[in-house]
Amino acid sequence: MEPVLARSVRLADDGVHILDRRNFPFERTWVRCATVADVAKAIEDMVTQSSGPYFAALWGMVLAARDTASMSKEQARAYLERAGDMLVATRRTNNHLRKAVAAVLAGVDAHDDVQEGALAGAEAGDERYRSRSRALGAHTAALLPDEGAVLTHCWADLYLTETVTAAQAAGKRLRFICTETRPYLQGARLTAETLGEMGVDTTLITDGMGAAVLSSGEVSALLTAADRVTMDGHVVNKVGTLGLAVAASAFDVPFLAMVQAPDRLAATGADVPIEYRPGEDVLHTLGRRTATERAKGLYPAFDVTPPRFVTSVVTDRGAYDPARLADYYEGVDSPGESND
Amino acid sequence: MEPVLARSVRLADDGVHILDRRNFPFERTWVRCATVADVAKAIEDMVTQSSGPYFAALWGMVLAARDTASMSKEQARAYLERAGDMLVATRRTNNHLRKAVAAVLAGVDAHDDVQEGALAGAEAGDERYRSRSRALGAHTAALLPDEGAVLTHCWADLYLTETVTAAQAAGKRLRFICTETRPYLQGARLTAETLGEMGVDTTLITDGMGAAVLSSGEVSALLTAADRVTMDGHVVNKVGTLGLAVAASAFDVPFLAMVQAPDRLAATGADVPIEYRPGEDVLHTLGRRTATERAKGLYPAFDVTPPRFVTSVVTDRGAYDPARLADYYEGVDSPGESND
Repeated sequence: MEPVLARSVRLADDGVHILDRRNFPFERTWVRCATVADVAKAIEDMVTQSSGPYFAALWGMVLAARDTASMSKEQARAYLERAGDMLVATRRTNNHLRKAVAAVLAGVDAHDDVQEGALAGAEAGDERYRSRSRALGAHTAALLPDEGAVLTHCWADLYLTETVTAAQAAGKRLRFICTETRPYLQGARLTAETLGEMGVDTTLITDGMGAAVLSSGEVSALLTAADRVTMDGHVVNKVGTLGLAVAASAFDVPFLAMVQAPDRLAATGADVPIEYRPGEDVLHTLGRRTATERAKGLYPAFDVTPPRFVTSVVTDRGAYDPARLADYYEGVDSPGESND
Repeated sequence: MEPVLARSVRLADDGVHILDRRNFPFERTWVRCATVADVAKAIEDMVTQSSGPYFAALWGMVLAARDTASMSKEQARAYLERAGDMLVATRRTNNHLRKAVAAVLAGVDAHDDVQEGALAGAEAGDERYRSRSRALGAHTAALLPDEGAVLTHCWADLYLTETVTAAQAAGKRLRFICTETRPYLQGARLTAETLGEMGVDTTLITDGMGAAVLSSGEVSALLTAADRVTMDGHVVNKVGTLGLAVAASAFDVPFLAMVQAPDRLAATGADVPIEYRPGEDVLHTLGRRTATERAKGLYPAFDVTPPRFVTSVVTDRGAYDPARLADYYEGVDSPGESND
């Protein structure tokens, strides 16, 4: 069965419906956004995350196009650009939003009818993201054994679901161990729920138990997504990835990091600023205080794993040694059409 | 100021009062135990942990001695032995309980009056544990820099408070970073609260953030207690220690493990069975469900850090290289009087 998080942003006649991930799976609430401004607010309020904002921006732009019926094509184009700027402004560090807006504007430019063009652009952007994730998942599944346990951290979204789909299609019998991923518990809520929906044998551990599990010999691979991979093979991902990667290396477990493409704008780890989120989040669990009042919290949202702890970077074009990521771009002539 | 957890088991006329650590510091409830059977039940119900059961057993035996007023010395001795058996049976893997019972029985044997002897034995046991912790704390503090950040995991109890006391007396300016230590949150509740009470600048992180903090260069030392240290230098401690130790080693941060003495009954890590606690605990936080219903939980309570990741084992007799722990016992003639 397709897990609910694989299609958690949906276009309908009455607007865009976004599954609220903040209290998922304890509650399954869909937030209806009647306008593109509603979509922007939902993204800003963290109703969705990971690949969710990308899809929300695609369909949000389609909502904006519906507002342009009485406008000239030129007016409509300008209106859509402003709508796109508003969407991009919700999360400045999320490159996906810019790409979603560009996909819809490209569709508009290629069609006479603005609404038709916006819809075609959004559909193309949707399919493009999904097909690249499918390719990435197939490449990843090929690296996993026919039987065994995979340790994963945080929520790798479509990369993970496509990997599982490909592994299942190949008849592999994999079980997954997930870290809970404090403070937001993406592992305990999104990953474990989704793997369970897909019929995968799923075991949850706390974030401190990864090394114990890796040292036990029962884990075949450590598998995570990457928010970004630098050209020299540094993996930037949800905080906690570094500790697992170092332990995997110490106990000879391969670490596979999944990303659509390495980032040509980031030569090395120092080029990626680490975002700090409110320390208060560490002192709470799902809104409830779980720490003393006497401490302050610290929340570096990401960490940077040096290439010496990374076995393979798996992309939509296949797996690369972290020292050979430039190979990904060999033969790509047009920067405008590149996969990055 | 002395933190409340430094004296969290107290003898009074109406029984033994034990600070309930299960919901500390959100509630500060003392459980009154009128009889030794009440003390055994409190230990079994996890009202107290770490060094708490040791002190509870000492004073529980004193309560038992109060029941013996009308008995002959022989009857009283047999009654106290049965009480001791009941206390030891509450937590089979806790060697401390056996030592507490033995300390009180030794006092009884050395005095004519049973109640006087029990009290003297308990007081001697109390002072012995505290003085060894003081010595250990002084040795540990001597290894820490005059200024800097120390990362600690779980709750190192009197070893930690004595280390901080010794460091403060030496004028050292240390700040602490604590992992929250899921699933029971000993770090977020016991350690961070106690360090705060002692006036220490305290920062809380989730269990997955340790490697990021260790890789940042801001941490001078990783410092934890050990539940057990084997003669060949394996450190058995709360799950999560291994991952931090591996990361500390990868980023050249020394790891100091505190234990009163290495365990002469355990030659190597394989001699220490790892306790598994209910997986359900991983799926909950302070009693509330925080994971999907679709996953099962796994809770190895301890992990085993190989000596290659351990810089020093600090004991009441000083710091030892993990490869030289036999030196601890050099010159100790009488097994009965040994410090193990």
